[in-house]
Amino acid sequence: MKKPATLDLNDVMQRINFNHLLGIRFVRSHKDGVTIECPVRPELLNIAKVLHGGVAATIADVAVGFACWNHFQGSRRHTTAEMKINYLAPVASGKIVARARLVRIGRHLVVGEVDLRDGQRNRVGIAIVTYMLLD
Amino acid sequence: MKKPATLDLNDVMQRINFNHLLGIRFVRSHKDGVTIECPVRPELLNIAKVLHGGVAATIADVAVGFACWNHFQGSRRHTTAEMKINYLAPVASGKIVARARLVRIGRHLVVGEVDLRDGQRNRVGIAIVTYMLLD
Amino acid sequence: MKKPATLDLNDVMQRINFNHLLGIRFVRSHKDGVTIECPVRPELLNIAKVLHGGVAATIADVAVGFACWNHFQGSRRHTTAEMKINYLAPVASGKIVARARLVRIGRHLVVGEVDLRDGQRNRVGIAIVTYMLLD
Amino acid sequence: MKKPATLDLNDVMQRINFNHLLGIRFVRSHKDGVTIECPVRPELLNIAKVLHGGVAATIADVAVGFACWNHFQGSRRHTTAEMKINYLAPVASGKIVARARLVRIGRHLVVGEVDLRDGQRNRVGIAIVTYMLLD
Repeated sequence: MKKPATLDLNDVMQRINFNHLLGIRFVRSHKDGVTIECPVRPELLNIAKVLHGGVAATIADVAVGFACWNHFQGSRRHTTAEMKINYLAPVASGKIVARARLVRIGRHLVVGEVDLRDGQRNRVGIAIVTYMLLD
Repeated sequence: MKKPATLDLNDVMQRINFNHLLGIRFVRSHKDGVTIECPVRPELLNIAKVLHGGVAATIADVAVGFACWNHFQGSRRHTTAEMKINYLAPVASGKIVARARLVRIGRHLVVGEVDLRDGQRNRVGIAIVTYMLLD
Repeated sequence: MKKPATLDLNDVMQRINFNHLLGIRFVRSHKDGVTIECPVRPELLNIAKVLHGGVAATIADVAVGFACWNHFQGSRRHTTAEMKINYLAPVASGKIVARARLVRIGRHLVVGEVDLRDGQRNRVGIAIVTYMLLD
Repeated sequence: MKKPATLDLNDVMQRINFNHLLGIRFVRSHKDGVTIECPVRPELLNIAKVLHGGVAATIADVAVGFACWNHFQGSRRHTTAEMKINYLAPVASGKIVARARLVRIGRHLVVGEVDLRDGQRNRVGIAIVTYMLLD
């Protein structure tokens, strides 16, 4: 019997050291992407005591990577080619949630857009991430 | 007697939780920016066992933040408005080094470009980061 | 009697030389942004005989500028701080349509996301554009 | 006898309609890229009577495209995958000059950075552009 995709993705998340260090969790897969999240904790803050921009950049990158993984069911290796993020509001507590949607799945490149929100569903960032599929 | 800037920046780096979690170290200040670095260790890797893209994005963001700090000698608060990074090559071991140069210091915005290299001085990424100065 | 916003924006579009050179037209305003479009014609093509990337970049920039204009009803001057565009598919004929949505309206910065489509409603690009409000 | 590369690139520039419409000129090739320029004229201005952001975005895109062309001596077709530009200062008169440097030449992707200056050599923008090589 085929194991459900959700279990696989949780499993994959745990095997990626840096995602584990940050505490990123897989939430659910969608037809066009995935949702993942990361609880805010003291280790992830910057000097202003809000979530470090690097955490938001990381979760955006990871969200599109997992959307790729989900799309190809793990059959294709991929690597981030480039990413761009705009910060819209600080996140002081709760969690950051990333919803990635794949907008182009080409032969070599996959492009995803990411909507970042805090625990109250306020938009805190937007990102575009390009992954390159490896042969 | 005035404390040298280098000591201040090392001190600032240690007080930023996420930078401390990653192990980012201040290296030196330049006329037009700063150099910082982060040793590669297992916790910072992705599933392919190379440095996670989120670490490179974080160090690029931090490098321009420290270049701002250095320029204003800590007198202005700032926050990342947006960033963009292109990954040029994987980093498997050693360290990642970020050299940030400020290319525009405006009334509200500071723009920096970042050259990312591995321990052998190979280019591994380029980034552009915009900080907003807070009043 | 107050002149409707749509008329003003058409009028503004005609007064911007480069938009006029390209043939960009205002289509409509929305609660959260605007839609504008540009018919494809021979002068706007590249060597592969598809719409030049510079035209798509221009219309994305203009769309967020007009969304700003619409939001502030022309009362604030603004200038593009930065933009990022990903090309998803070529446009060979018909028109390119840009739908801009403002996702952050701050004191100094306005951030918009742009959905670019061809005449058949296929997605051909996505962009994020930041405008700086001038005092 | 082999025709010099410079002549070919001038010839290519003239055959690209949109570059011709803008008045973009090839200046010279370098070991790692090219320099191109575009004289400022009334048709290229925005409502503030400075060079339209779309012109700067276009010349950045074109500069990396010509750097690709120069590198492969026209033997590979390519298309822009994505670009990002930061505007540093307005250009009111004279010309805009784009110096592109290729920083990664991969099997499928070419990444270039672009330094944009006005006629007085002041920095007016920086850009990163990714081209995809077509098979």
